[in-house]
Amino acid sequence: MASIEQRLQVLEDKDEIRELTARYCYAVVAQDGQALLGMFTEDGEFHMGEHAWRGQAELRKLYVDQVGNIGPKPFIQNHVIQVDGDAATGNCAVEIRVIEKGESVTACGHYDDQYRRENGRWKFAKRVFHLYHWAKLAEGWAKPAAPPDLR
Amino acid sequence: MASIEQRLQVLEDKDEIRELTARYCYAVVAQDGQALLGMFTEDGEFHMGEHAWRGQAELRKLYVDQVGNIGPKPFIQNHVIQVDGDAATGNCAVEIRVIEKGESVTACGHYDDQYRRENGRWKFAKRVFHLYHWAKLAEGWAKPAAPPDLR
Amino acid sequence: MASIEQRLQVLEDKDEIRELTARYCYAVVAQDGQALLGMFTEDGEFHMGEHAWRGQAELRKLYVDQVGNIGPKPFIQNHVIQVDGDAATGNCAVEIRVIEKGESVTACGHYDDQYRRENGRWKFAKRVFHLYHWAKLAEGWAKPAAPPDLR
Repeated sequence: MASIEQRLQVLEDKDEIRELTARYCYAVVAQDGQALLGMFTEDGEFHMGEHAWRGQAELRKLYVDQVGNIGPKPFIQNHVIQVDGDAATGNCAVEIRVIEKGESVTACGHYDDQYRRENGRWKFAKRVFHLYHWAKLAEGWAKPAAPPDLR
Repeated sequence: MASIEQRLQVLEDKDEIRELTARYCYAVVAQDGQALLGMFTEDGEFHMGEHAWRGQAELRKLYVDQVGNIGPKPFIQNHVIQVDGDAATGNCAVEIRVIEKGESVTACGHYDDQYRRENGRWKFAKRVFHLYHWAKLAEGWAKPAAPPDLR
Repeated sequence: MASIEQRLQVLEDKDEIRELTARYCYAVVAQDGQALLGMFTEDGEFHMGEHAWRGQAELRKLYVDQVGNIGPKPFIQNHVIQVDGDAATGNCAVEIRVIEKGESVTACGHYDDQYRRENGRWKFAKRVFHLYHWAKLAEGWAKPAAPPDLR
């Protein structure tokens, strides 16, 4: 049986994790690669489709070199989190507005997230992005386009 | 005056109810009718427009037979919840991406929800969906279309 | 070191503030200007672009005279809140569906919010809206339009 303090801690942890995913969005919009890197653990990973970026050096390529090209505006919803001490897993959905080669693109999907507490702060240990569709706004998701190669 | 434990319980209840509506979205995306049915009480109801689905047998027609046809991608926002013991009411807004007869459709609205705790788990007792608009993406919500008949 | 009661209070405050921004959306959809005014402090402010509405009389012009014209449907995400006693600051993102002169418009951005507790209830002390884009759905955000002049 969890104590009051333990139950409160879980709610605080979930609150901080939800805000982590929100702060991630603001950093993406601001194209603040340094802030984004700081939200991942040293061995943090991001997976999308066939590709993965592992560790801070590879994440830097994604968040500093690539994100600016498409100027994503991400909006997070449907967050579910399970906390287990200093580790946690979660899912959150996202709608993203992008401009790709001068065209308006709307994408959505969800993240399978792994979070880890380091030095008292929750960070992303691993984000696996499951794309529902990547669609030109003029074409719609009934005729989805191929997502860009971000390597 | 509520005790610390009672106040904590309310926050835990609201957290679980928010996650219930999120898990509902993932089950809709996965077209997991069985999971959706398990989120409703035995006498659970879903109302949309003039029609209602009452009880597990009718809900099964909606969630197993109909949902797959339009492959909805729902995104929940603006959640407000009032907890009263083992019952709760709430509102949450939703944006939904659908493909209807090969065309991209964007819909939005909000739910008037009633939740009930059964065997220690929060479930939907009643969802009343208030549609703001159901619009072909190519036409926009200035010229909304008629929503499909899901009976 | 915060006590259990203090930590619980912060979570309750954040929960009420999140619901304040949600109730704001429902009042906007319902075009309930009176409810919207009641969510602002007496000296409450709303800022957008170059213009500001300060105090209840000016806010009334915005929320009662203007909001109805474009019938916004706002959806809030990415909420981050810092509570400091009876004051709080926060950011929340928003996607908004509008009909402007018969055309479907999609807008998004985020609020820099200041909240204040008055008579035991959290209210908006100041909302500064940062527009990401205001776009005709038929044109897309790659060719954003000018937002309307709401003065």
